[in-house]
Amino acid sequence: MPNQYGPEYVRAIAPYQAGKPIAEVAREFGLDEASIVKLASNENPFGVPESSKQAMAAAVADLGRYPDANGFELKAALSKRYDVPADWITLGNGSNDILEIAAHAFVQGGQSVVYSQYSFAVYALATQGVGARAIVVPAKAYGHDLDAMAAAICDDTRLVFIANPNNPTGTFIGAGEIEAFLQRVPAHVIVVLDEAYNEFLAPEQQFESADWVRKYPNLMVSRTFSKAYGLAGLRVGFAIAQPALTDLMNRIRQPFNVNSLAQAAAIAALNDKDFLEQGAKNNAAGYQQFVEAFDQLGLEYVPSYGNFVLVRVGDDDQAGARVNLALLRQGVIVRPVGNYGLPQWLRISIGLPQENAIFLAALKKALA
Amino acid sequence: MPNQYGPEYVRAIAPYQAGKPIAEVAREFGLDEASIVKLASNENPFGVPESSKQAMAAAVADLGRYPDANGFELKAALSKRYDVPADWITLGNGSNDILEIAAHAFVQGGQSVVYSQYSFAVYALATQGVGARAIVVPAKAYGHDLDAMAAAICDDTRLVFIANPNNPTGTFIGAGEIEAFLQRVPAHVIVVLDEAYNEFLAPEQQFESADWVRKYPNLMVSRTFSKAYGLAGLRVGFAIAQPALTDLMNRIRQPFNVNSLAQAAAIAALNDKDFLEQGAKNNAAGYQQFVEAFDQLGLEYVPSYGNFVLVRVGDDDQAGARVNLALLRQGVIVRPVGNYGLPQWLRISIGLPQENAIFLAALKKALA
Repeated sequence: MPNQYGPEYVRAIAPYQAGKPIAEVAREFGLDEASIVKLASNENPFGVPESSKQAMAAAVADLGRYPDANGFELKAALSKRYDVPADWITLGNGSNDILEIAAHAFVQGGQSVVYSQYSFAVYALATQGVGARAIVVPAKAYGHDLDAMAAAICDDTRLVFIANPNNPTGTFIGAGEIEAFLQRVPAHVIVVLDEAYNEFLAPEQQFESADWVRKYPNLMVSRTFSKAYGLAGLRVGFAIAQPALTDLMNRIRQPFNVNSLAQAAAIAALNDKDFLEQGAKNNAAGYQQFVEAFDQLGLEYVPSYGNFVLVRVGDDDQAGARVNLALLRQGVIVRPVGNYGLPQWLRISIGLPQENAIFLAALKKALA
Repeated sequence: MPNQYGPEYVRAIAPYQAGKPIAEVAREFGLDEASIVKLASNENPFGVPESSKQAMAAAVADLGRYPDANGFELKAALSKRYDVPADWITLGNGSNDILEIAAHAFVQGGQSVVYSQYSFAVYALATQGVGARAIVVPAKAYGHDLDAMAAAICDDTRLVFIANPNNPTGTFIGAGEIEAFLQRVPAHVIVVLDEAYNEFLAPEQQFESADWVRKYPNLMVSRTFSKAYGLAGLRVGFAIAQPALTDLMNRIRQPFNVNSLAQAAAIAALNDKDFLEQGAKNNAAGYQQFVEAFDQLGLEYVPSYGNFVLVRVGDDDQAGARVNLALLRQGVIVRPVGNYGLPQWLRISIGLPQENAIFLAALKKALA
């Protein structure tokens, strides 16, 4: 008889550390919510698009009904947009759900999962959650070392997670390198290419990863509406893969995982090109604002392709935590990344120009 | 090298069969959506409460932000309502999520899970999803046989699911029987008491199951906002258990599993006593409307304590499917339960008086 509940691998999991909500910081530090700037969760500083608000208002009347378990209309919109059949699409409660479903659908206890050092924390959680063995490949210049990752794949490896651009470091891998990697991966190993930050790439860096899905039966591309589309609070993401993979995902997926308002809002956002353009323009300007200031302050940062920048705020192992606390006291929430093994660094989301300026002023004080 | 993707136990899962959405039936049968009556998913015929609509409207502005991963305000409201500490509460993306998280948090591949024949389909899915062995205990009069379930618990059993009232049969177990069962369950076996339909019980049948949670460290009570509270489309449920269990649930739970609007709407609904009373009154009247008609038609039904009735529409194994199709052609959606091993039966949700009447008229035609 066991003297503790649950499998050992579950008891060993360290829960995800979310960005501190504004209300929580206000309570903890005795601050006014309206005065707080949150640049901690790579959220869209413009909030939810107006087009999505209108779509939601129209959908509220039906909220007593369960959501469409098959997501007919959202899948139809995604199918058109990415030129893939609707049954190549899996909907998720955010792309977090896609990553978890993939681990549950493709990996069992004792098998292994490959991912990079300094990559998204959910890869580790999803791997641990199924009792699988993590093969964490050392990063190269804070990004994925795809050669080393290909070499790390074992007989018992069933899944590889790749984030591109990567969170929390912001690094990017070009199309040629990704495709060379896909050609090296054995056919029985599934690659989840997590493109949560894809929409922030410059047009010349973007490539239609759905085309690769047609070519590689073991590839699944994961996307989200939480970042560029501004729907983080609603929870909706999706995966594109060939039906053999989608079919297994749907056996694990909770039937009503994506709520009705999220489905309606995502269809509207998907077609809102102006909102995406506005966001990309703000992001490019905010990135310049940050890196110029970091250069002036003599702070090292990792060149970023996402809507955030990883910046080194000191040399000792307490630097990130210390500067983070000094920022919190000034009402600025950013993300410490000690749990990623980066205790000297902070990850700052790009906000509106005024939010960025408030952060930079607070940072100067915190460093002084 | 495997020649198929995914664990064998995942490939063996038969996905959940949701009630057909109104839009889908309209497309399939060439009907006008407005003319369709859906009594298929035990939804609230009054839809979402006005109080929840107002709370959502106030929360829309923040939807670009991630939800509060800790659900501070909703947990505070539940904590007050059920007189338990906030850290005894786990929030879920519907109670479906609670059931899945419980299986992942407490059971590993090869261990066993006990549940009853004719109980909620998600118990089987959650069990299969972790590669566990299902011990399905034969029902007694379409309900749970708790003596047999206690006797069925093995050394490797880690979890027991009990639905009370039970879906899809509507049966109910009184407090005395439940507590006698809890006393017989070994301390290392976790009991999930799924009370999704609790609010439809008459006051004299209700009991504070949170009191049992104080007494039994291996008990988890699961509740939902999808039924009596009218929030099915938003996805929110919760579990109450002692911290040792809640802590493991939170290691498996996706951090942003409950969206921001669901959290706001649930707080409002929880305090909307008028809405609950109106629903209970309508449900009691609709139940009478159904059973009087079934008696007149000479149809057997299972006395129900939920917001639905299981009715036997014929003696052959095609009866449920045949009558269901005849109802669909008339624009009435109910739930066939052949996948529950009940092919002669249909499950009908209780709607508004007029919806019930349309269903009963269509049923008479379908049986003729």
